Amino acid sequence: MSTASTIPWLTAPAAIPDEKSRQAAQARQKILTKPPGALGQLERIAIRLAALQGTATPHVEQVHITVFAADHGIAAEGVSAFPQVVTAEMLKNFSHGGAAICVAARAIDANLEVINLGTAHDTGPLDNVKNYSLGLGTSNFSIEAAMTEHQVACALNAGRQAAERAKLAGAELFIGGEMGIANTSAATTLVCILLNESPVNIAGPGTGLDSRGIAHKVKVIQRALDLHKSHSTSPLEALRRVGGFEIAALAGAYIACAKMAIPVLVDGFISSSAALVAVRLCPGVADWLLYSHTSAEPGHRIMLADLDAEPLLELGMRLGEGSGAAVAIPLLRMACALHNDMATFAEAEVSDKS
Amino acid sequence: MSTASTIPWLTAPAAIPDEKSRQAAQARQKILTKPPGALGQLERIAIRLAALQGTATPHVEQVHITVFAADHGIAAEGVSAFPQVVTAEMLKNFSHGGAAICVAARAIDANLEVINLGTAHDTGPLDNVKNYSLGLGTSNFSIEAAMTEHQVACALNAGRQAAERAKLAGAELFIGGEMGIANTSAATTLVCILLNESPVNIAGPGTGLDSRGIAHKVKVIQRALDLHKSHSTSPLEALRRVGGFEIAALAGAYIACAKMAIPVLVDGFISSSAALVAVRLCPGVADWLLYSHTSAEPGHRIMLADLDAEPLLELGMRLGEGSGAAVAIPLLRMACALHNDMATFAEAEVSDKS
Repeated sequence: MSTASTIPWLTAPAAIPDEKSRQAAQARQKILTKPPGALGQLERIAIRLAALQGTATPHVEQVHITVFAADHGIAAEGVSAFPQVVTAEMLKNFSHGGAAICVAARAIDANLEVINLGTAHDTGPLDNVKNYSLGLGTSNFSIEAAMTEHQVACALNAGRQAAERAKLAGAELFIGGEMGIANTSAATTLVCILLNESPVNIAGPGTGLDSRGIAHKVKVIQRALDLHKSHSTSPLEALRRVGGFEIAALAGAYIACAKMAIPVLVDGFISSSAALVAVRLCPGVADWLLYSHTSAEPGHRIMLADLDAEPLLELGMRLGEGSGAAVAIPLLRMACALHNDMATFAEAEVSDKS
Repeated sequence: MSTASTIPWLTAPAAIPDEKSRQAAQARQKILTKPPGALGQLERIAIRLAALQGTATPHVEQVHITVFAADHGIAAEGVSAFPQVVTAEMLKNFSHGGAAICVAARAIDANLEVINLGTAHDTGPLDNVKNYSLGLGTSNFSIEAAMTEHQVACALNAGRQAAERAKLAGAELFIGGEMGIANTSAATTLVCILLNESPVNIAGPGTGLDSRGIAHKVKVIQRALDLHKSHSTSPLEALRRVGGFEIAALAGAYIACAKMAIPVLVDGFISSSAALVAVRLCPGVADWLLYSHTSAEPGHRIMLADLDAEPLLELGMRLGEGSGAAVAIPLLRMACALHNDMATFAEAEVSDKS
C-alpha cells in the first residue's frame, strides 16, 4: 500500500507569538481595579490573545468561520444514528441559514462560509455553499484507505485556502466547523491511532447512538485499526487512511492559520482530532489553538488533555458545525473588553492590597 | 437580644412558572435541526427561560443590573486583603465607569445602577451612584449583631425597590451585584448558619488572603458563630446578625423579582449567600434563580449544591460586582437565538434519526 508523502507547507514552521505583548498584557492585568487573578481564565485568555495578536490590547471582533462538509464511506457500516443523506440535507439547511452555526454566526456577527468537499448525495447548486468536491465522500476505511494521496492533499489545501480567505478578510480569529454523517467514527479511529488508545475509551454516541450502537461502532473501529494502524507510519498517513475530507481540511486550516499568525478557536470532538493531526505535523501550531469547550462526546476529554487544552466552556454540547466555538466567542470578546477598558488602580485612585 | 420579626412581603408566594410555555419550548427543542440534546445546557436554559417568561420563544435582551455597595464592621478584625477604604474608592470607580461590572454591562448593553447602602468612608456625591445610606457600614458581628431590625428591613426593601425599577424598565432579566470589603466573611458566616457548616469548609481567600489569613478569618467567623448561631432562629435573624446591607438587599431583590416574575441570574459567592436566604424565606423564589458560574471561592460549590444550581460557567472568577453573571449573559442570549431561530426538521426538509 502507498504511504502519503510529505507535503512541505504542512511542516514549515508556525509563527512565533509575541513575548513582549504577552508581558505587557500580563503587567496590565496586575494593575486593573480588581483583586489580582479575580477574572480567572478571562485574564489568561486576554494575555494569550495579546501574545498571538502582537498587541497589549487584543480584539476578537472580526471572526471568520469556515464549515467543511463531506461524507464518509464508513457510514455504510451503520455507525451513525442518522442516515447519510443528512449531510447533503444539512448543506441545504446551511444554505438557507437555518442550522445552528448559521444562527450562532449571525448572533456573533461573524463571516460564515460553507464548503462542500464531497457528499454521497447530490445537493444541486446551493447559495452560500462553495463546491470543492473531492468525490462522493471518502472510501469505507473498514475495507480500504479513506482517501487517496491526491484527495488528502487537496483536502488539506482546501483548509489552507479557507485560512487565506480569512486572512484576506482581516479575520482576528478563525473557527473551523464540520458536518458529515459518521465523522465521529473517522475522528475516533484517527485519535486511537495518534494517541495509541483503544476505541472503547474514545468512541461515544456521536449524534445519538444507544449503548448497542456504540458497541457496534467500537467493533467497526477496531477492525479498521487492525487494518490501518501498523501502516500509519506518520500522522499524515493516518489522516489519509482513516480521516475524512473535512478533518483534513480543518487540519490544513489550523496549520495555515498558525503560519499566518491567525489565532484559532477549536470547536469540539471532530475539530480536536484535526487539531491533534495539525500539532503532530507541525508542533508550533499548538501556540495558535485556543479551545472553546469540552464536548459531551466522552473521548474529547482525553484528546483535550493530550493537547494541553484549557477549554472555556463545558455545556454538554455535541453538535459540531463549529457551534461550540461560536458560542464561546462572546467570552473572548468579554475577556478583551475587560482587559482593555477597565481602569487601573492609579487611574481610579483605588488603594492596592493592604 | 431582639429577634428580627417577620416582614410579610418576604414570605408572600412567588409567581409560578408557566408549564405550557415550558412544554412548548421542550417540544420545539426536539424538532430543531440537530441531534436531540446536542446543545446540552443551552437547551435546558432556553426551556427554563420560556417557562419563566411565559412564552415559547424567550428573550434576554433587556438586562437590568443593580450593584449594592456597603461596608462591614467585621473588616476591623483584619479579615480582608484590602483596606476598608476600597469600598468607597470603588464606588468612585463605578461612578466613572472603570470597574469590571461597568465594562461588562456596556459590553452586554445592560442598564447598570449602583446603590450606596452605607460606607465607612465618605464618598461625597457621585454621578451614577444612588445614595441610600443605612449607616457607616454594619456593626462588627464578632462583637454584636451586624444590623438592627430597622436596618435589615430597609436593606431588604432597597433590594425590592431595585427589582421594581427593573420591572418598570421592562427588564427581561435581573442581575444583582455587590461590593463591600470583608463581605466574604459576612457571607461565609451566614452560610455556615444556614447550612450548618463549619467555617473551615466554607471560608476562602476572598480578595486574596494567604493561608495564614484564611486561618485567621476562620477563627473570627467561628467566634461570631459561637455568639450568634444559637440565636439565629430564622433565616431573617441570621441575616440581621451576620449579614450585610448588600447581602440583605440582594435577598430582597431576588424575592421581589420572583414575585414579579422576573428571572434572575445569580452571580458568585456573596450573591449565592443572598440566594440561600431568599429561598429559605420564600421557597418559590428558587424557580426564578438561574446560576451564572462556579466561583473560585471554595465554599461556593457547597452552596450551589444546596441550591440545586446548574451554573453555566466555571472560569475561576472571584470578583463579585455581578461580573460573573454579566459575563454569562451572552450564553443566555445564544441559547434563546438558537432556540428561536434554528430551522425545524420539517422546515429544512432534513431527515430525522434513522
